[in-house]
Amino acid sequence: MITRMSSLFLRTLREDPADAEVPSHKLLVRAGYVRRVAPGGYTWLPLGLRVFRNVERVVREEMDAMGAQEISFPALLPKEPYEATNRWTEYGPNLFRLKDRKGADYLLGPTHEELFTLTVKGEYASYKDYPVTLYQIQTKYRDEARPRAGILRGREFTMKDSYSFDLTDEGLSASYQAHRDTYIRIFDRLGLEYVICSATSGAMGGSASEEFLAVAPTGEDTFVRSTDSDYAANVEAVVTPAPQPRPLEGLPEAQVHHTPGTPTIESLVAFLNGADLGREFTAADTLKNVLLKTRKPGAEGWELLAVGLPGDREVDTKRLEAALEPAEVAMLDDADFARNTFLVKGYIGPKALLDNGVRYLVDPRVVTGTAWVTGADKAEHHVVDLVAGRDFIPDGTIEAAEVREGDPSPDGHGTLVAARGIEIGHIFQLGRKYADAFSLDALGADSKPIRITMGSYGIGVSRLVAVLAEQQHDAQGLYWPREVSPYDLHLVVAGKDDALKAGGEDLAAKLDAAGLSVLLDDRTTSPGVKFKDAELIGVPTIVVVGRGLANGVVEVKDRKSGERAEVAVTDVVEHLTSLVRG
Amino acid sequence: MITRMSSLFLRTLREDPADAEVPSHKLLVRAGYVRRVAPGGYTWLPLGLRVFRNVERVVREEMDAMGAQEISFPALLPKEPYEATNRWTEYGPNLFRLKDRKGADYLLGPTHEELFTLTVKGEYASYKDYPVTLYQIQTKYRDEARPRAGILRGREFTMKDSYSFDLTDEGLSASYQAHRDTYIRIFDRLGLEYVICSATSGAMGGSASEEFLAVAPTGEDTFVRSTDSDYAANVEAVVTPAPQPRPLEGLPEAQVHHTPGTPTIESLVAFLNGADLGREFTAADTLKNVLLKTRKPGAEGWELLAVGLPGDREVDTKRLEAALEPAEVAMLDDADFARNTFLVKGYIGPKALLDNGVRYLVDPRVVTGTAWVTGADKAEHHVVDLVAGRDFIPDGTIEAAEVREGDPSPDGHGTLVAARGIEIGHIFQLGRKYADAFSLDALGADSKPIRITMGSYGIGVSRLVAVLAEQQHDAQGLYWPREVSPYDLHLVVAGKDDALKAGGEDLAAKLDAAGLSVLLDDRTTSPGVKFKDAELIGVPTIVVVGRGLANGVVEVKDRKSGERAEVAVTDVVEHLTSLVRG
Repeated sequence: MITRMSSLFLRTLREDPADAEVPSHKLLVRAGYVRRVAPGGYTWLPLGLRVFRNVERVVREEMDAMGAQEISFPALLPKEPYEATNRWTEYGPNLFRLKDRKGADYLLGPTHEELFTLTVKGEYASYKDYPVTLYQIQTKYRDEARPRAGILRGREFTMKDSYSFDLTDEGLSASYQAHRDTYIRIFDRLGLEYVICSATSGAMGGSASEEFLAVAPTGEDTFVRSTDSDYAANVEAVVTPAPQPRPLEGLPEAQVHHTPGTPTIESLVAFLNGADLGREFTAADTLKNVLLKTRKPGAEGWELLAVGLPGDREVDTKRLEAALEPAEVAMLDDADFARNTFLVKGYIGPKALLDNGVRYLVDPRVVTGTAWVTGADKAEHHVVDLVAGRDFIPDGTIEAAEVREGDPSPDGHGTLVAARGIEIGHIFQLGRKYADAFSLDALGADSKPIRITMGSYGIGVSRLVAVLAEQQHDAQGLYWPREVSPYDLHLVVAGKDDALKAGGEDLAAKLDAAGLSVLLDDRTTSPGVKFKDAELIGVPTIVVVGRGLANGVVEVKDRKSGERAEVAVTDVVEHLTSLVRG
Repeated sequence: MITRMSSLFLRTLREDPADAEVPSHKLLVRAGYVRRVAPGGYTWLPLGLRVFRNVERVVREEMDAMGAQEISFPALLPKEPYEATNRWTEYGPNLFRLKDRKGADYLLGPTHEELFTLTVKGEYASYKDYPVTLYQIQTKYRDEARPRAGILRGREFTMKDSYSFDLTDEGLSASYQAHRDTYIRIFDRLGLEYVICSATSGAMGGSASEEFLAVAPTGEDTFVRSTDSDYAANVEAVVTPAPQPRPLEGLPEAQVHHTPGTPTIESLVAFLNGADLGREFTAADTLKNVLLKTRKPGAEGWELLAVGLPGDREVDTKRLEAALEPAEVAMLDDADFARNTFLVKGYIGPKALLDNGVRYLVDPRVVTGTAWVTGADKAEHHVVDLVAGRDFIPDGTIEAAEVREGDPSPDGHGTLVAARGIEIGHIFQLGRKYADAFSLDALGADSKPIRITMGSYGIGVSRLVAVLAEQQHDAQGLYWPREVSPYDLHLVVAGKDDALKAGGEDLAAKLDAAGLSVLLDDRTTSPGVKFKDAELIGVPTIVVVGRGLANGVVEVKDRKSGERAEVAVTDVVEHLTSLVRG
């Protein structure tokens, strides 16, 4: 196929759009791939639509190859199924809601768990029907508070969402793994640099949820990765490596000390190091007990919770909340302290907590045999050498402490560094939540119902176009991976004389006949403008028909590396075909 | 590609859905192509999605071949452009409107003239940029008062809409003709039976608007067609063939008669035939003058209008309104008659109308030299032999009379018959309405602005799936044209023994290797059930691997004709390949 730039609906821009901050947004607008029509609403122009379709094709091919079956739901959906799962309310202002002419409530689908569940329930009945995996590639809507970064975070976007339906937990694990493998194939084919990030701590049974994050300094998501392995995780999902328990024998006795004026860790450490105790103390030797209260869903009252963690670490609220989910968590107020007089602010220790039945969870570093300086439950007093597993036994551990760069990687290899990324995929073991909401059962071989278990898997298809641009560009413009490039070749006729024009047309026709798609710059503008546009648009191989044509050569330039080679006109079709076909 | 029915997400139904009236709705639901999720909202199941994609592919290939360039707009659109053209209001309750979290007004796009116009204005500036034709294949929304007939008239549906942008009227005509040719290619490739229907009378300059109607007895649109030619038109667009004017010489003088008790055409004809006037009269010899009033857009007052038509014809309100558009039209009330005392109800004639300056338009059959019996502007009096062009000269003609079966076809060949159809395409010369609304100009060679003229062209892509089903089915189920069939072949393994199963798998693999797509019925159900499903699903060629396999033959059945042939296993791949490839 030959597309002539003289008639292509494309006008490149020399200036960045005023509202653009990230490179992909600037370049996709400047190179004429997208145009904004509303906050978070973009039009695909011809070049952009071609890249988008290529990404969509790769996703579809790999989903089909794994045996997922494609269907397609409306985007305009009735309220009722979303009320059944309470998401009509839970989604809050992120949901676009509207009424039809009769006043019935509708929404624009942000995700389709409810509809997929109901559809499977409508068609399938027997255990013999399962497992099944369905998917769609469809327009979704979310009323983002701050749509930004062009098509990276829009309010109307295209997602591939798929759902697996299994009879057993083992089946769900297999479906999950199949999706994981497929996502790796998809993102590898697209030439993306990405990490697979644990999104839950694994407490719920292995890899119940993982995110695929494209590495990008402009990304909205923070994660940690290992310096020496492929370990990566959301900060909420990092599992603190626990040290080995140590033998209790021979450890010094716990001793209470009068520590006047030490309500903070800093003042305590300074006091200890001035108290001639025969060793040096750091904040990491102290055990800080943070008091909170939690409330389980549906419960009336709050329950006290104490979190014990090394004094050199702060509580990370997000990690704390993730660890306690689905319970609510709140700080104590003065009334709580007044009601619980055993809590001596600034000097709280394990003894009073355990004696008074307060649930006490500690950081995983607080293992048996570790000795701590901690509160003695009496104003201006601390206890030194209080040994876990000997002097106190906590109710369990909790992942609530902040994760820091330099922490050992949970997989035992290297240390953690923080990085930023853009979520491009998410795989998630839903379990039976939606099957419960709609009573999705299969009739078993024994005529008893089997509740179905589900997985949910998403890829941001339109977002991937922006992510690719984010990862693959330089100061001059974009450079696309061959798999998604709008054309195989960008052929520039570098001059106006008839011989050059004829030479360009002739070569384009031959390349077209060889099955390659060609963007032919046949405009009457100067070669300089054409070269600039070619760099901006980013087709990976640029062919220049210029002065050399008289000597029987054309120039072949690699957009990304900038390497140029002169190739004989007689060889160039074969040369380019093998270049494109790899 | 091989799809196995043992794992295909498909459950056919034996019963018609309760809400279905038309065959396509019944069969597409029963055969598992679509499922309803809301009024006018349907899900495409795997088979349906494959047919839909095939239709979409044909449309896209032909649009690309004509040089139209594909882009894609959001469906969620801001109010402002639609306010600029007043369509935000004009659309009334057909428009889905909603607000975002900030209270800004949005709509779900029913059609995208505004956005296309603004987009071209954003990119193009010079006369050298034009002409250009852009299109999209996109989800559209209309809040239909009565969504019905499954995907034939939904509230969420897919349309191809394209728009041409030209510098001149001649350019617009050429763009219009190119679309017309492309639509013929598309609908021919899809194997549709359709007519091209004039949608306007041509008064605005030839074929300013035509509809493509698929012929279907269940269709919502009525049109007329000729018995002897390919003439077809909306009733509103029928141009009455005017007889030749006749010489005035020698015609009898007009004579006023006292005609007591003749306020109706029927009573008048009876009176005339009893009055010994030397000839027989019919209602067609009388001239009925219908009084109306019209108001131009933006005008304050109403203007009187008299429509003169043969007494055997009624006024067709739709034709009248179409002829007077954009003016409003209303009947006279008693106050109007009281104000205009020269109007003698039941006896109104041309003389009083013309004497009093009432605009007087007549049916095209009222040509110079035709003699009429009409009102004498005096109670119980009529004038006989009042001759047009001699005794009165009307202000012009109007297409307001009803069209009847048996009327001569406007193209001079045959007579008109009424028929019903489903609109599948519409091509329309918009002119400068939208360019005016948004000041879309090109800078001319002389540096003066040239106002752009536009055409608008639509095809109901998702509707076409239903239209094909409506035209191509029998009592047993569907039969698809090869171009859109979900699979090339439906291969039925008619039995459970291992040799048959292996034979089926083997043949499917060979057909797949030959590049054919195969729906393989490898289920354990009875051959009877499989045959019924094959008839219902409607793949055009059904291959049966059954008892004959032992003798080296399989059966090849044509779904539509029911013809069966035994083909040697050794020849069957070649046989089927040539059948499918045509």
